[in-house]
Parts: sequence; structure tokens; C-alpha cells
Amino acid sequence: MASKMASCIFCKIVKGEIPSFKLFESDKTFAFLDIQPLSRGHALVIPKVHGEKLTDIPDDHLAELLPVAKKLALATGAQEFNILQNNGKGAHQEVGHVHVHMIPKPNPEEGLIIGWPQQKTDMDKLKALFEEIKAKV
Amino acid sequence: MASKMASCIFCKIVKGEIPSFKLFESDKTFAFLDIQPLSRGHALVIPKVHGEKLTDIPDDHLAELLPVAKKLALATGAQEFNILQNNGKGAHQEVGHVHVHMIPKPNPEEGLIIGWPQQKTDMDKLKALFEEIKAKV
Repeated sequence: MASKMASCIFCKIVKGEIPSFKLFESDKTFAFLDIQPLSRGHALVIPKVHGEKLTDIPDDHLAELLPVAKKLALATGAQEFNILQNNGKGAHQEVGHVHVHMIPKPNPEEGLIIGWPQQKTDMDKLKALFEEIKAKV
Repeated sequence: MASKMASCIFCKIVKGEIPSFKLFESDKTFAFLDIQPLSRGHALVIPKVHGEKLTDIPDDHLAELLPVAKKLALATGAQEFNILQNNGKGAHQEVGHVHVHMIPKPNPEEGLIIGWPQQKTDMDKLKALFEEIKAKV
């Protein structure tokens, strides 16, 4: 973990070793503009603690991420926007430190593009899955 | 607001007026399987309080959403997954009550499909935008 943190670009941004357009900072949370934005106002909210996936971050370090994303959405004046947090390369994660995207959606061309390959509703399958997951929650 | 709540399908699910595959419930939060999933284990986490967009929900009702999404990700055993919360019809929101999707991404075909129309980095434009947003945070 220590070596991963040493090379983590977001840990360096938190420490100020790499400059950023910092929009918010508290003891647990850091937020800044994405410099390769999908739309005007695209920003990132990250926990200061290093962790690759959502499942690696303690709950009390997760709690502030959405309130800060909300604050940024209000500050940009975005009427429509997406909140996105990707876990794993196959799920489009590009930096291995948890980050929540706040991406304004001003029009169909800019901002996040979403594909929605919805599966057929299969109540029997869902019920079996439900029993399985419910037992593990 | 009262009339919107009366007709809101997610408010009805919270109240038990419409059945659901409930995975978690606390005083502020409710989670259940999406019955039109993008992948096996696709679930929704919602604040019990009614609000259309992230910006309509009090911070203390937002705080638990990601910790519960994390709990569900762990319970499904998903190695890769996306967390998504859409605000506004143009941003792919289909039900007018804030909901956080936890969508496992088992392979390129199933789960969330992401399009990423990245804009060119323009440091001057970003700096101006930064000053503008920073003043409002």
C-alpha cells in the first residue's frame, strides 16, 4: 500500500506535490476540477485516504463524498448532471484511487454518455439472487 | 412536494406499498434489487426522504448512500462495478427520486456502458472557470 501511495497521482495532488484547481478540502475529503473534462465544470471528489475501490475505503471517509459532490453541482449551476464512481479497469476506472465524478450534462453531446443494456425482468432469477445476496448483506 | 411524493414509485417502495427485493433499511436509507438490471446484482440505494435530485437532499441523508452501496458491492462479490446517480432526464434519470445505482461490471457487454467524450485540456479556460466556481463553493 505504501508504495502504491507513493506513486499515486491523486495522493500527490492531495499533498500539493502536483498542483490542482482545488475546489474543496476538509480533513477527509479533497475536490478539484478534472483537467480533461467531459463538460464545463466536470470535477472530482476524492477521499484523502488512499484506496483503489469503494470497497477499500472506510465508511466514515465515504460519508462526505456525496455532500461535497452536491456542493460542487450547486456551485457550477448545472441543472442536469451525473455522479459516477468507477471501480476496476473493466468498469472504466483510470486512476487507482477512489474518485467520484460530478459531470454536468448540458446537452446530449457533452458530459457523460450512457449505454443501458437492460436485461429482461426474470422474477424467479431475481428471487434466487435476492436470497443469496440478502444473506450476505 | 406532497403530491409528487404520493405518486412516487420509490416512496411507495419505501412505505411497502409496492413490494421490493429489499436488501437494506435504516432510518434514512433503503436499498433493493433493480428489477430491470444491467447485470447480475444491479441494486439501488435511495434516501427515504423524497427529492428529485442530489441537490434536493439534505447532507445527513446523503452520507449513508455510498457506505450502503459499498456494502451491496461486497455482498454481490462484484470485482468491478460502477456507482451511478443521474440527475435530470437529459442525464438519463428515469425515476424522479434520488437513487444511486450499484451496477456490477462482469464483462464488456453487461453492466453500464460508458461513453467518454473527453474535451481538450485548455488551461486558460480551466483557470477562468476555476475562479468562477471556487467563488461559489
